[in-house]
Amino acid sequence: MTQEPGGAGTNHFGGFHIQAGPLSDQDVARVELADEIRAMIREIISTDATIAEIRQVRDLVRSGVESLVAKSHAGAQGMNEAALAERSKNFLARSPVLGTINPIAVPLVIAVLQEGANATVEGRITFTEPYEGAPGCVHGGFIASAFDEVLGVAQSASGQPGMTANLTVDYRSPTPLLRELVFRGWCEKVEGRKIFTRGTLHHGDTLCAESSGLFISMRPELFERLLAMRNSNQ
Amino acid sequence: MTQEPGGAGTNHFGGFHIQAGPLSDQDVARVELADEIRAMIREIISTDATIAEIRQVRDLVRSGVESLVAKSHAGAQGMNEAALAERSKNFLARSPVLGTINPIAVPLVIAVLQEGANATVEGRITFTEPYEGAPGCVHGGFIASAFDEVLGVAQSASGQPGMTANLTVDYRSPTPLLRELVFRGWCEKVEGRKIFTRGTLHHGDTLCAESSGLFISMRPELFERLLAMRNSNQ
Repeated sequence: MTQEPGGAGTNHFGGFHIQAGPLSDQDVARVELADEIRAMIREIISTDATIAEIRQVRDLVRSGVESLVAKSHAGAQGMNEAALAERSKNFLARSPVLGTINPIAVPLVIAVLQEGANATVEGRITFTEPYEGAPGCVHGGFIASAFDEVLGVAQSASGQPGMTANLTVDYRSPTPLLRELVFRGWCEKVEGRKIFTRGTLHHGDTLCAESSGLFISMRPELFERLLAMRNSNQ
Repeated sequence: MTQEPGGAGTNHFGGFHIQAGPLSDQDVARVELADEIRAMIREIISTDATIAEIRQVRDLVRSGVESLVAKSHAGAQGMNEAALAERSKNFLARSPVLGTINPIAVPLVIAVLQEGANATVEGRITFTEPYEGAPGCVHGGFIASAFDEVLGVAQSASGQPGMTANLTVDYRSPTPLLRELVFRGWCEKVEGRKIFTRGTLHHGDTLCAESSGLFISMRPELFERLLAMRNSNQ
């Protein structure tokens, strides 16, 4: 695929599977702040600090939030073509699963091993304590989230990127926190606008979960409708 | 169900579907800090502050993290029976989907409408910008996470709580950010240790997604094995 993300007449999701290019200096600063927030989230869960100590930290964070709220938020005023192109370029960096900028994301680190009809991707992730479900295990819902993203990148790398129509996850074995996990995802077949994908999750040699995903490649008019809906929401 | 969470010989997940009781004063302070972190995450995504301004906030947050890291973390040293009971009591409050204490969670607010074989639950949530997938839409992976939790609470309310074996989500219509969404989940049938559940996600009258989940009620020895694995991870 050589099309430019966000270019006129192209599929606006065209760049989805391409790793974000070099981040802008501003985005690098966002990642630095996001990493501190990740550390803070682990502390909130695990600290035994006193109430007064926790409230001191709360006040520190609140003053930081207030200083940012008072500053510019041009991106929130609706998206023009340039903003859309910029956004497409940094789509991955803002994802709640892959995004280094987004503290909701661990994040998962993903590599496209092969493009085209047999597209294959691999993702690596070490979930921390805030993602715990059963004791010591990754929350099953976040395993599903990661599969959605891994299979989404795989189907995007097939050349006809779209949106998830069905996601199925079979949980085979408890998935440990604080251990490196490996997700694999690949395209199985393409039928018209339907892209069929499958994936696995391993910890070492242990198969922890399997998944299949059906994606429907997106018509340009749907993308326009979503953008209109997005702007009317603001 | 009247059993005490964490009591000897009981299913340790027994209290899963019961809303967390009144939080301790320390946990209330955690929620206050978590709410500031939620506001900060939205700012990281949307701010157009300068690099220097973002780094000032990064340094503020870092000083807060450092002050907490230097303090007590008794809970992280392994779990004794009392810690387990305390933890069970606040299981929901720490969940990455439902947990008011956990900034990864929006959170989803859930109510058990009926217990027993026909257990039914309802969850309400308004996803914010950090949970965006396609433009203006909730990331499909986080819809799956929420279903895992909603169906998990429903199966738990059936009286034989366990772990997810299969989760299937069918996406029917784009799901908007910044709008209140309603999840419903219910138990369809119980066959031995297998609990079959189904659920829906609506925005107003629009069906956005449907889900089914198979749960396997947990044997006490599995819970013990998970706890051992958890402790060996620390």
